[in-house]
Formats: sequence, C-alpha cells, structure tokens
Amino acid sequence: MSAVSATPLRLGIAGLGTVGIGVVKIVQRHAEMLEARTGRPVVITAVSARDRTKNRDADLSGYAWETDPVALATRDDVDVFVELMGGHEGAAKNATEAALRAGKDVVTANKALLAHYGQELAEMAEAAGRVIRYEAAVAGGIPVIKALTEGLAGNQLRRVMGVMNGTCNYILTRMETAGLPYDTVFEEARQLGYLEADPNLDVGGIDAGHKLSILAAIAFGTKVSFDDVVLEGIGRISIDDIRRAGDMGYKIKLLGVAQMTGRGLEQRMTPCLVPDSSPLGQLQGGTNMVVLEGDSVGQIVLRGAGAGEGPTASAVMGDVADIARGLRLPTFGVPAEKLAEPTPAAVSAPAPYYLRLQLMDKPGALAKVASVLGEAGVSISRMRQYGHADTSAPVLIVTHKTTRDAIDVAIGGFPATGVVEGEPVAIRIEEI
Amino acid sequence: MSAVSATPLRLGIAGLGTVGIGVVKIVQRHAEMLEARTGRPVVITAVSARDRTKNRDADLSGYAWETDPVALATRDDVDVFVELMGGHEGAAKNATEAALRAGKDVVTANKALLAHYGQELAEMAEAAGRVIRYEAAVAGGIPVIKALTEGLAGNQLRRVMGVMNGTCNYILTRMETAGLPYDTVFEEARQLGYLEADPNLDVGGIDAGHKLSILAAIAFGTKVSFDDVVLEGIGRISIDDIRRAGDMGYKIKLLGVAQMTGRGLEQRMTPCLVPDSSPLGQLQGGTNMVVLEGDSVGQIVLRGAGAGEGPTASAVMGDVADIARGLRLPTFGVPAEKLAEPTPAAVSAPAPYYLRLQLMDKPGALAKVASVLGEAGVSISRMRQYGHADTSAPVLIVTHKTTRDAIDVAIGGFPATGVVEGEPVAIRIEEI
Repeated sequence: MSAVSATPLRLGIAGLGTVGIGVVKIVQRHAEMLEARTGRPVVITAVSARDRTKNRDADLSGYAWETDPVALATRDDVDVFVELMGGHEGAAKNATEAALRAGKDVVTANKALLAHYGQELAEMAEAAGRVIRYEAAVAGGIPVIKALTEGLAGNQLRRVMGVMNGTCNYILTRMETAGLPYDTVFEEARQLGYLEADPNLDVGGIDAGHKLSILAAIAFGTKVSFDDVVLEGIGRISIDDIRRAGDMGYKIKLLGVAQMTGRGLEQRMTPCLVPDSSPLGQLQGGTNMVVLEGDSVGQIVLRGAGAGEGPTASAVMGDVADIARGLRLPTFGVPAEKLAEPTPAAVSAPAPYYLRLQLMDKPGALAKVASVLGEAGVSISRMRQYGHADTSAPVLIVTHKTTRDAIDVAIGGFPATGVVEGEPVAIRIEEI
Repeated sequence: MSAVSATPLRLGIAGLGTVGIGVVKIVQRHAEMLEARTGRPVVITAVSARDRTKNRDADLSGYAWETDPVALATRDDVDVFVELMGGHEGAAKNATEAALRAGKDVVTANKALLAHYGQELAEMAEAAGRVIRYEAAVAGGIPVIKALTEGLAGNQLRRVMGVMNGTCNYILTRMETAGLPYDTVFEEARQLGYLEADPNLDVGGIDAGHKLSILAAIAFGTKVSFDDVVLEGIGRISIDDIRRAGDMGYKIKLLGVAQMTGRGLEQRMTPCLVPDSSPLGQLQGGTNMVVLEGDSVGQIVLRGAGAGEGPTASAVMGDVADIARGLRLPTFGVPAEKLAEPTPAAVSAPAPYYLRLQLMDKPGALAKVASVLGEAGVSISRMRQYGHADTSAPVLIVTHKTTRDAIDVAIGGFPATGVVEGEPVAIRIEEI
C-alpha cells in the first residue's frame, strides 16, 4: 500500500519468560515473512528481564539489555514497547505508562493491568496519539479482540461468553474423566505447573474475570469494570455434581458471561451448566473458547489454545503486525472518552437452574420439596430421583427459567420441610 | 484517534437481494453506533438493482437509484462500492473494475469473482491505491479473512481447512439424521430454497472451492488459483457410507483443505471423513467452520453462520467499518506483485483412507482382499466385517496413512480376487 514505509519497526521486549522468548523466536525465524506481510522489517532492539544470567532458549546477544523496564520503554531505538512481565501494579504499570508518555505504542499480554487500569491507560494512549494492543491478554492465540472490535463492528453485541482459563477447564475435565475429587486434581495441576503462584487467580476465576471485563468493555462500549464482575471459583464443584449434571445432559464449566440487559451490565465468571452437545460443553482440557453473539451475525464461536509460548506469542505478533502495517484503533474500539460508565445489573438475567438435593426416604418428601419450589415461584422442567440405597437419595431438578432470588428463597425453605439433608446445590444453566 | 475525520463514508450498494437489504438495515438501524465505532458517519448515497419496482424489506427512498451498476460504482458521491450482485463475469466484474479505476474502495461478497480474477483485481486496486475487502465472500459471518490475514500474521500457516458450504453440510447431516438417500434430501433442499440456481455450485463443491482458493492465497502468499482446486462433490455419497463411517467413529463432510507441502500447494474440496468427536465432526446443518493451523498458534477453530441476511451483512459491515476507520491492507495480505505463482501438488499428502467393500461369502475372501492391499503397500489399521445375511456382506477398512495412488492400485486389484462385488468406495480420512 502507498502508506507502507520501509522503516523498520523496532520492538523493546520487557519480560523474557515463555511468551517473551516465544516472541523473540518468531521475530528471528520469520523476519522475511513479517517484512513481506507488513511491508517493513520488524526487529528487536532491546530486551529486559530481572535476571540476565538465566539460561534462555533464544539468542539474545544482538539486543541491548536493560535491567529497568522503564529504561527499556523509553529508549530512543524502541517504537513498540512489548510488555510481557505481568502483574497489574509496579513495574508493568510504570513501564507501560512511561512508554506511552515517551510516545511508544504498547503491545501487552497483561490482562490484570487492563482489567484494573484499562480506562486510564486508554486515555493516556489517546492523549499521546499511541495505541495499546492486547490480543494476547484474552484467550491466548485466539484472535478474539480483533474479531470483536473489528470483525463484528457492524453488530450490536448481545452476549459474550467464554471459557478463558485453561487450568480451570483442565481441572473440571480431569475430575470428570478420571473420576477424581477437586482437591486431588488441584494438586495434580499444581505439580504439572498449570497453576499461577497464587492459585486463586486461576481457580477463583480472577484471571478469567479480568479477561471477561476486557471483552465486556469492547462489546458494550463501557469502561472496563472488573470490580463489577461477579466471581465464583470452581473450588466448590464436586465430582458428584459433575456426574449428576452429566446425567441430565450438561457439563460444568467456569463460564464467563457478559450481557447488557435492561437492568444494566451483567458480568459473571461463575460455574455454569451448559448442554453437553454444545461447543462449550464439548470443550476439553486446557483449550479456550469464546462465544460472541451479535444482532446480525448471530453466534460466532472461536476455539484455540488459551496459553503457552506459541499461541500467546502469535497473538502478540498479530498486534505487532497491525502496528507495522499502520492499522491503528482506539484501545477498546471507540475513543476512551466515549466509553460509558457501566451500571452493573443488580441481579442476573433469569435462567434455568440445576438443583441437587439429598432427599430423605419419607412419605411425601418429594411433594414437600415441590411445594416449596412452587411457593417460591420456581417451576420444575425435569426431575430425576435416584434409588434409595440408604435413608436418603439424591434428587436432581432442572427448573424452568427463574431468578437466582427465587432459587435462594426455595433453598431457604427446604430446612423447614424436614426432608432435605445437608446443603442443596444450585448451579445456573446458561442457555446457548 | 488523531487520524479520524468526521467526513462521512458514503456507500453505493449494487445488488439488493437478501444481503444488500441486510446491509441497508444495519446502516439505518445502527447509524449512531457505527459513527461511534468508526469516528465518522457511515451513509448510503446510492443503490442499484435490476428491478426497481420489486417490493423490498427496507426504505430506499433516501438513496439515488442507478439501473447500471457501473454508473453507481463511478458516482462522485460514492466512496465505497459495495458489490453484492454475485457472478464472476459481466456486471459484477465490470462494475468492480470501474469502481477501482474511479478511485473507489470495494467491499464485495463475491467469492466467484475473487476466485477467478483475484490477482488481476488486487493489482488493479493497488495501482489505484484502493482496497478490496471481501470478508463476506468466505464463511459468511465468521471473520476468517481478518483472523487469517491479520490475527495470525505472525504465523507460517500449515494448513487451512473448512466446511464452507452450508447447503452441503445440511444435506449430509439430514441424510444421516433422517436416514434418507441423497436424491431425496437434495430435492428437499431445492424446495427449501437452499440451492443455487445451478445446484452444482453447491453440491459440486464449486462455491466452497472458490472460498478455499481465496483462503489458500492469503495463507500461503500465492496467487489465487481456483483452477488448481481438486473438486469432488457430494453427489456420490450414499446413506450407507454415512452410516458405516459412523460405525467407525467418523462423519463425512465436504471438507476443503489447503496446505503447502514439499510437493507444492495442495487444494482439495472433497468429501472426507473426520473424527466424529472433533469440532468438524460435530458440525451440524448449515453452520460453517474454518480451521486455521499455524506454526505458533497451533489450531484455531472458527464457527458460525455461513450464509443468510444478517451474518453476511455483518461481514460486509466489518469491512466497511475497517475502511471507515482507515484500516487498509493489500487484498491478500501482501502486495499483489509479491504473491507467488503456486505450484500445484500433483498428488495429495498421505492420509488414512476409509474403504468399503462388498465381500462375497467365500472361503478365504478376506485374506485375498488383505493380500491385494498388502501388495499395494496399504496396511490395515482397523477392520470391521458385518454378518452375512446374504451371499455377500460389507467390510469396512480404515487404513494406515497411505497415498491415493496406493489405494487406487489396490482397488484396481480387487476384481481379480473374484470375491469383491461392485465398486469399492474409498474416502480420505483427514487427520485433525
């Protein structure tokens, strides 16, 4: 194109972990391809990491070394600051801000940073006439930010959903296939190195919640509001529920859902049931999936590796290529000043629920439960009662669409029946 | 962004069928949203179609009317010529060329035009400093052109696959679920209006082949070469094979595969078996799916509606939004002059094959067949022989990886055994 110049695009990479080294490898291996595709050489001029002496799987000898990422971000020979350090405070934030102030474009994989400071950084970038790109921050190698911001730009988005933490999906899938309890599989995952240093980032849904809040901002034109994401981790999911949900035709997923409703913006990252025949239900192991629903396009499903050296580096390089090609957009698709303050929905949209009760073997027990549900306004769609091997047996109920409030009222009414043992389990069924 | 101007982007739409009206509706319904997202008003100034008197589901009274699409394409008040007429000769081609010569950008849904004249049009566009965008030409609402050209720009592509003709997938799925023969379902599809005026475009694989040739050009940096696509339609697929393949754990799909091999560029649009548990295997009805495999990203799967008013119009509007935002790229991702002349692979890459034979009930029959296969260098991975209700019975064979040549040699050797009845069926199993 006429606008293409042969000036090299010079990257400064901060953070030389798996992803950083992955980026270095692509730039080295595919120099010619990148130049053909972007119309200019893409080169690395400087890198930065905490420990220079560490043995790394790439030749870094041709690059300047900065110990301080801020120094890297502001170097004269850096056009794009590639932030792959992670963490939403401290070095990553300081260096990103320094880069923008110094007139650099930024490419980052840092979902926490964007979830917490996305608005502020977007404003800063626009004031400086620079871009922040973050395809690698959400769902690894899947080009979902691009699909949502650009490909579906003609759509009013209705709902965005995703399984975006591979570790959680691995744990849930493994519990199911191996028939192992949560604690055992959690420990396995830890030993396999699948868990963050703070495992709650994974199993508590925080990491996936960060990603959801970013998608919601783009989809609905609102300021990123991670604090409004309703978070519930997978720690309370039992192997029993995985099995029983399976009996009723569902899988349990840590599912993110963002939708704009009449009651405001709903953002949830919680365990949900999804039909086992749906693409989300069929998602196994560490793979990620994002579902985008627009008023014209209907439902688009994107699937791919959500983490790892290659996929994440691929996403980073997609952003780098865009910058090299001169494709420039506001951070969240519209100018930061036009992003609306979201009103969080106080209650979530009605949905069917899955209920699991332990019912005592007493005459009229089921009738009593049904009556409590009826009084709470919850109607039963399907029910399955298991044989009484003991003095009590599980009952599974799939309700018609109802509210979480009504479910909670019903659960509150169960103890008085005298026929329900222990704590009932209620999990939302997300309709797909 | 600083580059954004408030000058309206003015569209001239040629072709007011389903998709054209879908585009009109989006522009009318989402004027404010489009302006917020692109930084400028997106408006329609003129339209064109064969029959002005036809009753259409949109108010066109505000737009100038041109009977001649070339006149529309060259109007002073048109910035982007939106070509939704279809057909690879005549009006669509003339008007597209006229638009480029007159300095207009082009957005088109016309896969046939690009498959036949992509290189020529890309050169013309670049000479004029204009862009041709065609997200709607491949896989309807799925933003696959964008994912491949931009999102995966850091990858050397390995293989691109897709189920990209919804009608064929509908027919195959319906044959399976209803247990109906091809001819019956074909007739149903015709009555439902799912088939093109020339049904061979659908069931002969031509339409899907057009799409594959476009994806291959982007993926491998080669000139579009539709003539090199190996085409085989679904007309010879029997309900028997659908059932038998199912018994062996496979589905039959009209699958496009493009890959660059040591022997050259392979482009096939043929019936293939895919594992029934794979995303491609699970694809039902008219939905499309594209699988992109890159050296860093691994496998990305994109799924969505491949046709219809909303999805196709969504893709058109994604392209329009890109142009409004100033995102400009060469037609196939690299300048047209850099696209290489592809060398078509003379033979397809080795793969396992599914074989169905009708074996006579004679002593040593199976041994004779196995011996012919062995002599051809084809080794058997799995076999299933059905009970002999008659004088002959079907035998299903899944081979280890082999070549189509070896399979053909084996099939050529079967008659001499005197134990194989009728024509054996051989279908490639695409490994996913």
